[in-house]
Amino acid sequence: MTMTTASQIDRDAVERIVRQIVLRQSGAAAAAAEPKLVVSISARHVHLTDEHVEVLFGAGHKLTPQKPLYQDGFYAAEETVMVVGPRRRMLPSVRVLGPTRPHSQVELAFTDGISLGIDLPVRPSGKISGTPGCVLVGPQGVVELKEGVIRAERHVHMNLDHAAQYGVKNGDRMRLRIDSSCTVVLEDLLVRADATSKLEVHIDTDEGNAADVDHAWRVELLKQ
Amino acid sequence: MTMTTASQIDRDAVERIVRQIVLRQSGAAAAAAEPKLVVSISARHVHLTDEHVEVLFGAGHKLTPQKPLYQDGFYAAEETVMVVGPRRRMLPSVRVLGPTRPHSQVELAFTDGISLGIDLPVRPSGKISGTPGCVLVGPQGVVELKEGVIRAERHVHMNLDHAAQYGVKNGDRMRLRIDSSCTVVLEDLLVRADATSKLEVHIDTDEGNAADVDHAWRVELLKQ
Repeated sequence: MTMTTASQIDRDAVERIVRQIVLRQSGAAAAAAEPKLVVSISARHVHLTDEHVEVLFGAGHKLTPQKPLYQDGFYAAEETVMVVGPRRRMLPSVRVLGPTRPHSQVELAFTDGISLGIDLPVRPSGKISGTPGCVLVGPQGVVELKEGVIRAERHVHMNLDHAAQYGVKNGDRMRLRIDSSCTVVLEDLLVRADATSKLEVHIDTDEGNAADVDHAWRVELLKQ
Repeated sequence: MTMTTASQIDRDAVERIVRQIVLRQSGAAAAAAEPKLVVSISARHVHLTDEHVEVLFGAGHKLTPQKPLYQDGFYAAEETVMVVGPRRRMLPSVRVLGPTRPHSQVELAFTDGISLGIDLPVRPSGKISGTPGCVLVGPQGVVELKEGVIRAERHVHMNLDHAAQYGVKNGDRMRLRIDSSCTVVLEDLLVRADATSKLEVHIDTDEGNAADVDHAWRVELLKQ
């Protein structure tokens, strides 16, 4: 079993956008060449439209990639925004992820939602119709989002070969078992299978912290 | 099924020490008179010795009960303290629970531990040997705890009749299945059975938020 754990992870990096563990199945599964499973814990973050980038950061502004994410072409940007909820509660510095998108969207953990006073709906990314809004404040301007504040539904990216190996297809549901000092089974992971994605589970900080993913000694992705 | 859910819960109460849901088993289980199951989400809190109460709040000070907890004799106190971690990070207002205890202890979720910069060990309450310390600041004084900062191990209180009904004994492990829009199974719940406790699961805010306990439509306590 190969493992990258908390001993190699700087627990100090509260502001970091993604924490990851990489585990391979041991024994028979490894012999069967099961694909490497990456579990990424996404901290709260914001996706923006080109238009909103310009409003928040100034006319003509483009996002500046700071750090590539595991999926090719995606990155954490240098830019952050303030997210303001109802009753003037706010999160002062929420990371922007790139590239830009057709709709702006704020992805928070429930812990964040409670501290902001927003009752978060659980939605797959992009399905934001009827969700709560918020105010985004940048160094050059302010955007009032009418909707788009969600808890992202836990999901797993994979390519079609991985899907075949696991015996699932796009839109199916799987289970993630995380063995640690506080073992958790997360159900209903949405399968997002396409031609090119790397195998990667996305969970949020509440889920990662509930299961202590940083100190996990095994993770298993299972058919539901 | 009888249920107290988020529609009745003030999500605004970040500072509240306990959120609870009460669910009865439906169908056959209800017919078999399965005991009422209360799931309580404990927010970060502090237990203090008599001596530390006096250091923090002044000579002769006694804790003032503010709100009774579900277990008889226990209460959230009016008193709060500041918890200071390494590198001068802090939580400004952490609730004290009463009554006082032989050892002071700080119970945090991992989310809190990360924001404080403390790598929390998972421990049953009272087993604090070798755990990290912190500084507690009250209105009248300061206490440096050499140890006692933990993530409380998830557990279930019950009396001996409940234990017999579930077929478990003190020290056993059970599973808690929480059905919601983000269903989670929490494993390794420690059974704390004695003559008088009410049936109550204690989980922390990370676990409660991972599973969206506030909006759960069913919980099941199961033998492991």
